[in-house]
Amino acid sequence: MFLFDDLADIQLVDVIEMLGTVAFAISGIRLASAKRFDWFGAIVVGFVTAVGGGTLRDLLLNVPVFWMQASRYIWCTVLAFLIVLCFRKFLVHLNNTIFWFDCIGLGLFAVVGYEKALSLDFPVWVCIAMATITGIFGGIIRDILINEIPIIFTQELYAVACILGGLLFSILYYLNIDLVVIEIATAVFVVIIRIVATKYHLRLPILKGED
Amino acid sequence: MFLFDDLADIQLVDVIEMLGTVAFAISGIRLASAKRFDWFGAIVVGFVTAVGGGTLRDLLLNVPVFWMQASRYIWCTVLAFLIVLCFRKFLVHLNNTIFWFDCIGLGLFAVVGYEKALSLDFPVWVCIAMATITGIFGGIIRDILINEIPIIFTQELYAVACILGGLLFSILYYLNIDLVVIEIATAVFVVIIRIVATKYHLRLPILKGED
Amino acid sequence: MFLFDDLADIQLVDVIEMLGTVAFAISGIRLASAKRFDWFGAIVVGFVTAVGGGTLRDLLLNVPVFWMQASRYIWCTVLAFLIVLCFRKFLVHLNNTIFWFDCIGLGLFAVVGYEKALSLDFPVWVCIAMATITGIFGGIIRDILINEIPIIFTQELYAVACILGGLLFSILYYLNIDLVVIEIATAVFVVIIRIVATKYHLRLPILKGED
Repeated sequence: MFLFDDLADIQLVDVIEMLGTVAFAISGIRLASAKRFDWFGAIVVGFVTAVGGGTLRDLLLNVPVFWMQASRYIWCTVLAFLIVLCFRKFLVHLNNTIFWFDCIGLGLFAVVGYEKALSLDFPVWVCIAMATITGIFGGIIRDILINEIPIIFTQELYAVACILGGLLFSILYYLNIDLVVIEIATAVFVVIIRIVATKYHLRLPILKGED
Repeated sequence: MFLFDDLADIQLVDVIEMLGTVAFAISGIRLASAKRFDWFGAIVVGFVTAVGGGTLRDLLLNVPVFWMQASRYIWCTVLAFLIVLCFRKFLVHLNNTIFWFDCIGLGLFAVVGYEKALSLDFPVWVCIAMATITGIFGGIIRDILINEIPIIFTQELYAVACILGGLLFSILYYLNIDLVVIEIATAVFVVIIRIVATKYHLRLPILKGED
Repeated sequence: MFLFDDLADIQLVDVIEMLGTVAFAISGIRLASAKRFDWFGAIVVGFVTAVGGGTLRDLLLNVPVFWMQASRYIWCTVLAFLIVLCFRKFLVHLNNTIFWFDCIGLGLFAVVGYEKALSLDFPVWVCIAMATITGIFGGIIRDILINEIPIIFTQELYAVACILGGLLFSILYYLNIDLVVIEIATAVFVVIIRIVATKYHLRLPILKGED
């Protein structure tokens, strides 16, 4: 079938990635709706939030763009739209659940980004940069589309979680740890940093003093 | 001659595409001028409006960027600038004509985008996505550059016209209709949807209800 | 060492380019800080200001993205951040020095952009476009990230300096002048135009008159 992916090819990591995609898309759809975007506009912003970081990464790495290889990213965005459409009055009670998916998505996106650069033999700092870009650029493009200052630049530790996750990946990889262990450790590490940072409102300082 | 294209190579479809390019560029130049951009700024915004969608499409498809293969897109933008410069006080009376060119441009851009993805053997949903991106992303980047919320997300059916056009193309192609017939039918279909939607103010609904 | 470039490979032109990179990054970091971006946000905006134009150029030309081949662009951005962090109260007295580095950076970026397109046998107008994109797009993306209208579209001659520099390069190259002479002449020409334009507040006119 040309519109759907072969479900037999989908593995556990894909399921986690799809949860992250849905969570990212929901954040885009809600923010776009608050700005009175129409249905299609909300779906586009949701999709861009979910795949924007990975798209920029793939363009920079000059590899085929991931969401053009499988239609599930589009279907996850449509699902996210249906969730917001049907449950919008109750979504505020689901904020905690969505936040969890968002954290897990970030952890997984960081790992995927790191490994794509690693598989192309890029140096470690490019791998860390790709982990970070995969994690944060969807949200940046989302905020540009809704004409707001990107929130991740003023929020609790977000990009820093990706960078630290990338550093952990680099160290464990240098120590020849098994790849599956590295992947899980990195993703969990990113998720923990995000949760701790959000709970305790940890932020980076702001540069000021100039007039 | 290195600055101009060989006119002998230009065909009817190129002429229509150039009309669309001029119409798209005019919309960018007028909006940029209203924001007090200087001449060069207006030309850049006009150019980006005309070629931005196709540029993103070509980057995503990893094919040579179309406007770097022929200089006529730059000359069409310069022509659009001269039209706005010379006739700005009368342009408001030409709004109807410019709207027509804009619709025709959209129809043609959608067809061109679909066919580029099709010729690279992408699945049908990627073809539809490329038709839509080619049609709408120039306007989105234009609105980002002038620091406004992208109007196509709140306007009469615009992206939807590209999507429906892409669906029609897919169905006719599946039915083995002659390619020239498909191209004309798709472009005309997109134009008709745009005109009907504008005349009757057809819009997609807005998601709301959350606080 | 995998984090730093081999210093033995660095030549005079690289040193000048690094000065330009630092100057461009400082402008991004200062503007982001004024918008209350956190440290990481300021570094990202600084980095994007410095490398954004060259990144778009490399994507359009379909060549490996330059800052992924050498880590010095990241270190230059970190250095720029440390300069702003430590000397922010005195930076206003250094505005003149930073302006000089910025001008020299622009001249050099334009030359680098032109030559990359030339080495790929693109026609002269693509070379001029790449010189201009390399020079101006970092600043445009910076202004989009801080949610302002791109200043270069309303400012003293900036893009025009790149275009005129590109034209000079084209003429001298057509005349078979020695390449090193062309490079120096073009960069100096761009710097002079910028300085004269800034001193005498030379701007392009604005299109107006429409309602």
